[in-house]
Amino acid sequence: MEKKGIVGKTEQRWDAVAKVTGQAKFTEDFPIANQLHGKIMHATITHGRVVKYDISEAEKMPGVVKVLLPEDLPQNKFGTAGHPYGLDPAKRDIEDRQLLTREIRVYGDEIAAVVAKTELQAVKAIEKIKVEYEEYPVYLTPKEAIADDAMRIHEERDNTIAHTTAGYGDVKKGMAEADYVVKESFSTSPQQHIHMESQVAVAFRSDDQRWTCISSTQIPYICRRIIAQAIGISWAQVRVKKPFIGGGFGNKQEITIEPLTVAMSMACGGKPVQLRLTREESIAFTRTRHAIDYDVEMGVKKDGTITAVDFNVYSNQGGYASHGHAIGSKGGSFINALYKMENFRYDARTVYTNIATAGAMRGYGIPQVTFALESLVEDACDKIGMDPIKFRTMNCRPEGFFNELSKVQQFDFKPVECLEKGREAFHWDEKLADSLKHKTGDKRRGVGVAAFSYGTAVYPFGLEVSSARLILMPDASFKLMLGATEIGQGADTAFSQMAADTLGVSYDKIIRDSMTDTDIDPFDPGAYASRQTYISGYAVREAAEKMRNKLIDLSSRMYDVRPEFIDIVDGNVVYVHNNQKIASLEDVAMASYYDMHYGKALEASASVNIHNNSYASGCTFAQVEVDVETGRTEILSIMNVHDSGKIINPLLASGQVDGGMVMGIGYGMGEGVRYNAKGKPLNNNLLDYKIPTFMDVPDLDQMFVESEDPLGPYGNKSLGENPLCSPAAALRNAVKDATTVGINNMPLSTQNVFEHLKKADII
Amino acid sequence: MEKKGIVGKTEQRWDAVAKVTGQAKFTEDFPIANQLHGKIMHATITHGRVVKYDISEAEKMPGVVKVLLPEDLPQNKFGTAGHPYGLDPAKRDIEDRQLLTREIRVYGDEIAAVVAKTELQAVKAIEKIKVEYEEYPVYLTPKEAIADDAMRIHEERDNTIAHTTAGYGDVKKGMAEADYVVKESFSTSPQQHIHMESQVAVAFRSDDQRWTCISSTQIPYICRRIIAQAIGISWAQVRVKKPFIGGGFGNKQEITIEPLTVAMSMACGGKPVQLRLTREESIAFTRTRHAIDYDVEMGVKKDGTITAVDFNVYSNQGGYASHGHAIGSKGGSFINALYKMENFRYDARTVYTNIATAGAMRGYGIPQVTFALESLVEDACDKIGMDPIKFRTMNCRPEGFFNELSKVQQFDFKPVECLEKGREAFHWDEKLADSLKHKTGDKRRGVGVAAFSYGTAVYPFGLEVSSARLILMPDASFKLMLGATEIGQGADTAFSQMAADTLGVSYDKIIRDSMTDTDIDPFDPGAYASRQTYISGYAVREAAEKMRNKLIDLSSRMYDVRPEFIDIVDGNVVYVHNNQKIASLEDVAMASYYDMHYGKALEASASVNIHNNSYASGCTFAQVEVDVETGRTEILSIMNVHDSGKIINPLLASGQVDGGMVMGIGYGMGEGVRYNAKGKPLNNNLLDYKIPTFMDVPDLDQMFVESEDPLGPYGNKSLGENPLCSPAAALRNAVKDATTVGINNMPLSTQNVFEHLKKADII
Repeated sequence: MEKKGIVGKTEQRWDAVAKVTGQAKFTEDFPIANQLHGKIMHATITHGRVVKYDISEAEKMPGVVKVLLPEDLPQNKFGTAGHPYGLDPAKRDIEDRQLLTREIRVYGDEIAAVVAKTELQAVKAIEKIKVEYEEYPVYLTPKEAIADDAMRIHEERDNTIAHTTAGYGDVKKGMAEADYVVKESFSTSPQQHIHMESQVAVAFRSDDQRWTCISSTQIPYICRRIIAQAIGISWAQVRVKKPFIGGGFGNKQEITIEPLTVAMSMACGGKPVQLRLTREESIAFTRTRHAIDYDVEMGVKKDGTITAVDFNVYSNQGGYASHGHAIGSKGGSFINALYKMENFRYDARTVYTNIATAGAMRGYGIPQVTFALESLVEDACDKIGMDPIKFRTMNCRPEGFFNELSKVQQFDFKPVECLEKGREAFHWDEKLADSLKHKTGDKRRGVGVAAFSYGTAVYPFGLEVSSARLILMPDASFKLMLGATEIGQGADTAFSQMAADTLGVSYDKIIRDSMTDTDIDPFDPGAYASRQTYISGYAVREAAEKMRNKLIDLSSRMYDVRPEFIDIVDGNVVYVHNNQKIASLEDVAMASYYDMHYGKALEASASVNIHNNSYASGCTFAQVEVDVETGRTEILSIMNVHDSGKIINPLLASGQVDGGMVMGIGYGMGEGVRYNAKGKPLNNNLLDYKIPTFMDVPDLDQMFVESEDPLGPYGNKSLGENPLCSPAAALRNAVKDATTVGINNMPLSTQNVFEHLKKADII
Repeated sequence: MEKKGIVGKTEQRWDAVAKVTGQAKFTEDFPIANQLHGKIMHATITHGRVVKYDISEAEKMPGVVKVLLPEDLPQNKFGTAGHPYGLDPAKRDIEDRQLLTREIRVYGDEIAAVVAKTELQAVKAIEKIKVEYEEYPVYLTPKEAIADDAMRIHEERDNTIAHTTAGYGDVKKGMAEADYVVKESFSTSPQQHIHMESQVAVAFRSDDQRWTCISSTQIPYICRRIIAQAIGISWAQVRVKKPFIGGGFGNKQEITIEPLTVAMSMACGGKPVQLRLTREESIAFTRTRHAIDYDVEMGVKKDGTITAVDFNVYSNQGGYASHGHAIGSKGGSFINALYKMENFRYDARTVYTNIATAGAMRGYGIPQVTFALESLVEDACDKIGMDPIKFRTMNCRPEGFFNELSKVQQFDFKPVECLEKGREAFHWDEKLADSLKHKTGDKRRGVGVAAFSYGTAVYPFGLEVSSARLILMPDASFKLMLGATEIGQGADTAFSQMAADTLGVSYDKIIRDSMTDTDIDPFDPGAYASRQTYISGYAVREAAEKMRNKLIDLSSRMYDVRPEFIDIVDGNVVYVHNNQKIASLEDVAMASYYDMHYGKALEASASVNIHNNSYASGCTFAQVEVDVETGRTEILSIMNVHDSGKIINPLLASGQVDGGMVMGIGYGMGEGVRYNAKGKPLNNNLLDYKIPTFMDVPDLDQMFVESEDPLGPYGNKSLGENPLCSPAAALRNAVKDATTVGINNMPLSTQNVFEHLKKADII
């Protein structure tokens, strides 16, 4: 690996100007001639079926082109999760969804659709469709849905989608050896992603009679496959294009609207149809973070040794399988990565219910399990009276550990350093002392800490491939083509830095594209699992190394210098020994285009299949002040510390941490879709579903415990999702430190804190 | 080279449905938000300068965004010819043009421009710009422009742009050895291309702050370079996209409007600006076929031996250098390729005049020189009383000849076979006999023949590189990416057949793209010189061979069969020995995407630099009936015979021949831009500039003398331009046979024939 100093430097996002000037085009911004507009009719019951449709009035409404019922569209069942396809049928996502459905499993299920000339006309026509329902009992929690008398939500399948047990040792024996056994239950909320840009897609018949779908998606290649599966056509008959996208956070790692959009266009003879979800539809009817319940137990000795950990996990899947068991089961290997546990059992069920389907969301199950684990650890520390940081550092996995569950070897893993350096940087001991002075009265203070570990990418549980291509331009700049997806996080900027670094040119010599196109960009499954700078980074590095070698080879032939004597530095071909210039790279580039003898266009492609996974780690420290009269909790200070290997672009990394912390604070302190007893979502808009604003969050402190992970392509590890894994647990622990009350059901809303304080007789 | 039978078969054009249904999008069809419209102000004098502009009224016109004068735009001089850039400054095209000019060298020169909200507003504003001119003398022919007292049309440069002499032997001695010396002068007309779609381009600032130009061009990569040169920015700062295009015929192998379009957008802060030429602008103010005058001499012996040939060539370049001397000088090596000539001299001048700039047009100088040569040969045959076909076959170059001028070796060259097989197929002898019966009275009949040779691509005079890329799709179809340009001729269909043939899959498994994009497609200079199926064919073949090898390699690893035992046939991986199926290619494709072990995206790229050039040949036979009372000439029958190697797609090839023959008939029988004495074009519209319609042409007979050229990537040689090289001369010879009058100044319009007959006292 060559290091030219571009990696590790804050370079300006290549798309910064376009974004701040409003020039950047998102899916809705592409003018498309004669575009029609689709709209979905959502069920207004939670569980049941449509027994009768009457579309006669709807069809007569002005501008209506098509009224579509389930029977009018292909009937194929398909899965919607953004996972690479499994060649092994056993590893495939559950296929339990159809384009439209008569069977209603969630409030808002997609029971009909209208295509009209304008969006408003489609809305008006939807209002004229009459339906008669038959209603079934509603199950809102896993425990309700797995009750003996519960009916199946999907006829073909038990409500328990999956039930797995992982672990090692003898948990019973371990518990018996403990001085204390802490046994608790935890529950977490169905947080919504609230990406700035709602789901939107446009589909039309391409000029080659295939199907094009422009979509705001994190996973263009998976989108291509799932559209084809849903429609029932050969996969390459679909072309997906992704322009700039206004966030996804996992909700766009799911194929929610694209197959229906294509089906609508097909039903209209291939004319372009746009389908976009309102904010209300997006909040209530797309995906949420899984609400997972935990019954957990931990055995500890007085000296702080963990003798056993036992997790019973109930993951509330909602109405459709989506990412399914991947999320509920994932926690096992990540908490196993964090602490040494001689006896460990992780029993996980994923259960259909009738709340909105849960799917991928930044953190992918780890914020939930971290909330449970780190609350449990806190309570264990309280039990044995041990400093919670010390307890963690003594139990943390060492560098170089081998994960018994994932069978993955680590070489660089620094949770201890995060905890220890963070303790100092956060001024933990001062804040602990300060809190001790505020343990009575209305305003009580406390400090809390929580650690986490997070993998990078999905190996060994899933496929990790990526590809990259570099094209030499005549002025010795390079077009970088990637299937990896820029979703606002700055991935493209990081990739450009990587390419520039390895090539030996300046950052501005790398040209990226705002459009990802499955027909022409090299295959990569997309933006999820904090995988891209790691997995796609390998592809970028390999493509850049190949290009560099081609440039050196051509230079060697042009200038009669042996290749091993040649390096490329700052856009020049130089002698490796003393950096003396042989030629400018531009001369070499021009020859590759125009020389009668040497002229051959240079490009370099790489595709990688990665069989390693570097675990990142980190922790959150928080100090809170709880108004015990009202339950209102103010965060006085909060700090995230991250072990994410080499930081590619400090400013972008810092932005990731800021964003993740805010999302983690929202998760811990208030967010969650609420349902009434009949399963109807109650807060489907941003007045009722509140996310933290700048006014709601304190200064966000952050620190990187930087190192070079030997497995990371540029020494880097995951960072995208990591920052929101631990804030909720740290805040819960801080509130407990302030009030002595451990709140085990998220979120720590004023109401929830108030009720707990009341129950504990503190108010 | 694998041959799987796809090459040589008529497959349906991949874009057929889109084109016949009107779905195909051309440059104007892309909706672009907030697009402004540009319009050019054309000079209304022919030679002179603008001494004063008054734009005050124009600026006040409604909708006007910018009124642009030459000084408002970059002042760089640039060339507009669609040639690959020359690293050797001596080989570069002359740079004599600016975005706008005060110096007027042709009627209609581009002296100002307006950008407005609508095209009509721009037109109206142009009308309000007032200019004062100073006028200079006007030179319409090379001989006027090289007169001693002629003023320079470009201050920096003599009116004779270039003057070269090629040849060998001793022409004087050869002439002395002849029994007869035929000495004549010929002149040819400035034919216009009349592509269906006029010149149109749209330019805007891209979201990466570079510049995008969507254009109807044959040469996207050259367009990128020339825009950058004209504007004065780094070449990769420009991205050119070419959608479907409605023909070019060489006029779009010239960069006529794109730099100005980009400059207009720059002047408007990067907003999108469209510039399109009306039919009138396109006919009168873009490019024409060079009107070339010839003073020629040929010495022959009674037995038909050619003792010497002497050509003095005056190529009328018009006001700007454009493709310049390349066209006037090119004839030498091609007539040298056709006949054995012991003594040969080819003296060519290219001269600035004040008629519209001449540029590339299908045939690129060869229709002109063939008209002169084959008329001269006919007259020589008449002189010695020899059968004109026999004269030609005895003098034609044999297979395997070496071209003394181009230094290129041939292996397959069949003009003799064309002439001999054509003689039979055309029923020459019967038609000759029939004509002999019609040598008196009003309607006189005659037969005529003319042969030609045409190279394939531009080697060794220019660079010949091309590149191709194939991407394996999950369903074992293949995306084919090319820089080569589909301009309506069906190149993409031919390339798809080539790729399918080499890969061992069916034609419908190849996916092409309607858009060529200089950022992402592999470099190829474009569509000209009948080069693409030959040069770009090598790139396709090499990319397909690489892909095939990768597929065999992966299959070998997956199925434990040695690679040399594996072939790919009909989309299956089979044993080479007995075609027994090992697996479907789709299984291999799916593994390349999704197998945990084998998964790596497969793509294959190739870039080639070709140092050979296969000469094609052919001939036209015609029988005409001349109404000697009026001069009106009817073509009774006409047949083209082509030696173009292997025919890739018979139906498309046949279409090329049809189109070329019609264009050749129009060239011979009537087309040509006319100027008044002051240089103003007189026929700038399709009422006054008539091209043949279906009603004007007889049945077009055609035949291929098919062979496998050992140098052609699929045995193929040039065909695109060839069909119009010889019709004009054959028709002239037929008219001479009918009337005894040889008409040496094109075209054989009714008026011209009448005047010649009158002069010859036949009327």
